[in-house]
Amino acid sequence: MDINQHNRFNNTPLKDKEKYMRLALKEARKAELINEVPVGAVIVKDGKVIARGYNVKEKKKDSIYHAEIVALQKACKKIGDWRLNDCDIFVTMEPCPMCTGALINARIGNIFFGAYDERAGCCGTMYDLPADSRFNHRPNVEGGILEDECAGILIEYFRRKRQEIKDKKQKSQ
Amino acid sequence: MDINQHNRFNNTPLKDKEKYMRLALKEARKAELINEVPVGAVIVKDGKVIARGYNVKEKKKDSIYHAEIVALQKACKKIGDWRLNDCDIFVTMEPCPMCTGALINARIGNIFFGAYDERAGCCGTMYDLPADSRFNHRPNVEGGILEDECAGILIEYFRRKRQEIKDKKQKSQ
Repeated sequence: MDINQHNRFNNTPLKDKEKYMRLALKEARKAELINEVPVGAVIVKDGKVIARGYNVKEKKKDSIYHAEIVALQKACKKIGDWRLNDCDIFVTMEPCPMCTGALINARIGNIFFGAYDERAGCCGTMYDLPADSRFNHRPNVEGGILEDECAGILIEYFRRKRQEIKDKKQKSQ
Repeated sequence: MDINQHNRFNNTPLKDKEKYMRLALKEARKAELINEVPVGAVIVKDGKVIARGYNVKEKKKDSIYHAEIVALQKACKKIGDWRLNDCDIFVTMEPCPMCTGALINARIGNIFFGAYDERAGCCGTMYDLPADSRFNHRPNVEGGILEDECAGILIEYFRRKRQEIKDKKQKSQ
């Protein structure tokens, strides 16, 4: 593993990271529109967005389809390889164990995320799998990019969901 | 979470577990035939195999396609739901972080595996993610079923791969 590759973004202006995270947020809003947990992701190679994805777990009736996996699969198709060493992912919520593992397996360069996830985050919150040098590959991680916006749409989504359940209960009484 | 559901297999005769693991081994051999790391999996519901899968990562040029994910996706399609609470997976090698996370997300009942994986195993060896009560769901795990056969085809595969590389080097000298 080339440790240096993981610092590529250290000199990248914050405005560029925010630009890509804004595109990921745009994806998250597409998930929100179809009543899915609003998480979105984009994958960037050489400054270009090569894949986009949003959570479609309920729509597809398949829990694999988190935003990261949807974007990963599109990126692999686009470049014709399962190795994504020269790619970075921007995702609005901290990846879960499945998605963190998938990003390690795909040898992604950098993981940038927005909101921290206390319930399943494996890029520093619950576990820090990308930092574990026993794995074949160790992506760099940076969290908290546009954190307020990324967390905001999630908070709003779950608030609305709770209200819907409350309303339903009141109607059935 | 219903803790009791995780002990469904405690009274199951070993011969039944071995029967399903043998079917998973059959899948692993299909991977071997196409020169993929030989790992296979089957998913069982109410005593019936509802999905089978083997590693096709190189063939599909997509690192998502471990045996477990292939089987998981087929099972979800078959039962029309992302929730696999009443299902169990039999896989020839201990699941990696991606696959363990996917099985937790899919709320699978039991994870039975054959060979332990010192390099990436997340069902007890490197991490024990299914035992972490902070996650939404906690599958039961049992490893070491037909361990010798399951590890054997992996050892043989990697031995052959190393020999191929050696032969290639000698030819080019």
